[in-house]
This record gives sequence, structure tokens and C-alpha cells, in this order.
Amino acid sequence: MGLIVEVDTVDEDAAVLVPPPNFSMVEDCIFRSSFPTPSNFPFLQTLNLRSVIYLCPEPYPEENLEFLRSQNIRLFQFGIEGKTDVSLPILRDSIMEALKVLIDVRNHPVLIHCKRGKHRTGCLVGCLRKLQNWCLSSVFEEYQRFAGAKSRNGDLTFIDRFDIVSLRQCLYSIIYQYQGYGSKKRRLLYTDENLQKPRLASF
Amino acid sequence: MGLIVEVDTVDEDAAVLVPPPNFSMVEDCIFRSSFPTPSNFPFLQTLNLRSVIYLCPEPYPEENLEFLRSQNIRLFQFGIEGKTDVSLPILRDSIMEALKVLIDVRNHPVLIHCKRGKHRTGCLVGCLRKLQNWCLSSVFEEYQRFAGAKSRNGDLTFIDRFDIVSLRQCLYSIIYQYQGYGSKKRRLLYTDENLQKPRLASF
Repeated sequence: MGLIVEVDTVDEDAAVLVPPPNFSMVEDCIFRSSFPTPSNFPFLQTLNLRSVIYLCPEPYPEENLEFLRSQNIRLFQFGIEGKTDVSLPILRDSIMEALKVLIDVRNHPVLIHCKRGKHRTGCLVGCLRKLQNWCLSSVFEEYQRFAGAKSRNGDLTFIDRFDIVSLRQCLYSIIYQYQGYGSKKRRLLYTDENLQKPRLASF
Repeated sequence: MGLIVEVDTVDEDAAVLVPPPNFSMVEDCIFRSSFPTPSNFPFLQTLNLRSVIYLCPEPYPEENLEFLRSQNIRLFQFGIEGKTDVSLPILRDSIMEALKVLIDVRNHPVLIHCKRGKHRTGCLVGCLRKLQNWCLSSVFEEYQRFAGAKSRNGDLTFIDRFDIVSLRQCLYSIIYQYQGYGSKKRRLLYTDENLQKPRLASF
């Protein structure tokens, strides 16, 4: 995103862009937000997304699917219940699988979203920060900035306890196994086949 | 920042990184935060900064200056008072000058900070979002996410009224005048010499 170039091509009459609520850049080519609606599609187009990581169990709305199709964006869905009493092992496995998709640069630029971009998205981003070696208080501060008054202690405990060591070991195996970068057609072969497979909606 | 590569080189014993409070990525190669302290320097090193935009009138602390020197990071200081009754024309001119430095990709990666990363930094980022054609409600939402309970109506009014049209015209003149990208040694020649010059501390 060269800002100068964008400025050069945007004039005063250009359409006003509407990011989804709770939108933010997380890292280079990683974004987060609440559930996008059609009013957000022109803005999302400017991100040149290659993937969306969707963290709710509800089916993706047809108008959103149509937008993804038109932009050639791949949807990765990990159905995590929005309630606070979600089963911890299931949450852990889902977040682990979502993390693997998230850190695979071949899926970038990628947008993570759930419903409000607070809890499920906050947990995934929090675990990414642990993987990046952020100290826990900074991870929590970021979580709370997006969750606001809706901050959940259960989410913070989940992030705190999330086992990043086993993910690192898995990453090493991915890095060593992976031999198809040039073609862009080969997918990662995960070694830990015991983990729940992500539900992929590819089209 | 290739995440896979970073993960590959970070092991469990690696030092824990401490971002400054209110740290966030704003755009590709643009970051924001509160005032960094030495505990944040190892984290800031990972950003490979080329510049810092500092929005307070107080002199930069010697230990921070030393860090910038050691990393070859250039400091651009725009002294904006932290009080709520700051003179509007002065604020407007300072933010305008800071914006010009901010959107110049030759200064990237760049970190914007004031004291708490809420008001002065929030105003600058808000004006950048207007330049990017974000709708005002999204600009305000982002401002409030960082300001929290300290949100100031005066800042929102300032962002609302900030004249982005004249900045666009200025940008066009910059784009047309600029002829030295390869050397990295030539600086932009602004046409609007009536504007207050930024106070540059380069070393």
C-alpha cells in the first residue's frame, strides 16, 4: 500500500470508504474487524485480500459469499460458538488450526473476523501475539482495546494458557516439509493429523 | 515482516517483547504508540523504523535519542501542547506538517507517538484517515478505541474540520516537484512556504 500512490488516484469526489466496525491492521497483511456488511465491501476491496478467516459457526451470508467470489478471496471458516461457556478443548483446537492458516503468508493479505471483532477475533490475535513473543500484559491491553466494556476474563485466561510451544514445533515441521512455494498450488502438509481439520469453504 | 521467518528464528528462550502501551499498526509501515521507554526498545528494533514523528514540545529524553542514533532513526518533532485549549491554527499547521512527513514513504517505516498515544497521535491518525477517504464515523471510532475514557470532543471537532483538500493540492505539487527518489538524499520541496516549518531534530 503506497500511500502516495493512493492519494494520487483519489480525488475529492471519490467514494467515501466505510471500514467495518472494530477494523484494524494487526500486522503486515493481517487485518481484523467485526462482521462486514455490503457497505464495507468497497473498503475491503482496497485491502486486496486473498483470504478471510471467519470464526463463527453460522453459515456465511450469500451476499458476502458473492463478494468473496467476485474478488477471488478464499474463505476459511472455523465455527467457534459465541457463548462464554464454549468447550475449552474445542476452542483450543479451533484457534490452533486458525493460527496455522493465519501465519501462512500464502494466505495473505487476510482478514480475521467474527461477529463483533471482540472475543473470538481477540483470542486468535492474542495467540498470534504470544507466538510473536509479546509480553502478556501487552497482549491483554490489545485484547481490551477492542473488547472494551465487553472484555471477558475467560478469554484472557484462554490466551494466557494457550500452548504456543507445540505450535512452534508444528511450524518447524511445516517449514521443513514445505517444498512448493513457487507454484502457489501446493498446500501445507500438517504433521499433526490428530487435530481437528478446519472446515474449509473453498470455491 | 514475514511472520514465518520470524517464527523460525524465535525460540522459547527468546526475550519477551514489550510494545509501548497503545501500540498499533496504522497502515503498512506506519505505527502509533504512547511514549516509548527503554523497556520497549527491543520491540521497536523489530519494526526496522526509519523515522519517529514525535508530537510533544518537551525535549526528547537522552536515552531515547541514544536509541534512535544507534538504530539510525530520524526524529521529526512537532511540538503540540497536550492541553485541551491549544490554539487551533497552530494545531492545524503542526498536524499538516506532520502529515506531510507521515505520508512520505521515504520516511517509512515510521512510528508516531506523543505521551499517551491518545489525543495528539489520535488527531494525526484521524487526519490521515480523512486523506484515505474513510467515513467520519469510522475515523471517530478508531480515535475513541485508543482514547477510551479520555476521548475529547475538541479533538473530534478538529478532525472533522481539518481541511484535507488543501493537503491534497499540496501533495500533487510534491509529486510533481519531486525528482530524487533514487538517491534517497534529496528531500521534498514544499511549495507552501507560508506554513510553519517543522522543527526537525536530525543527527
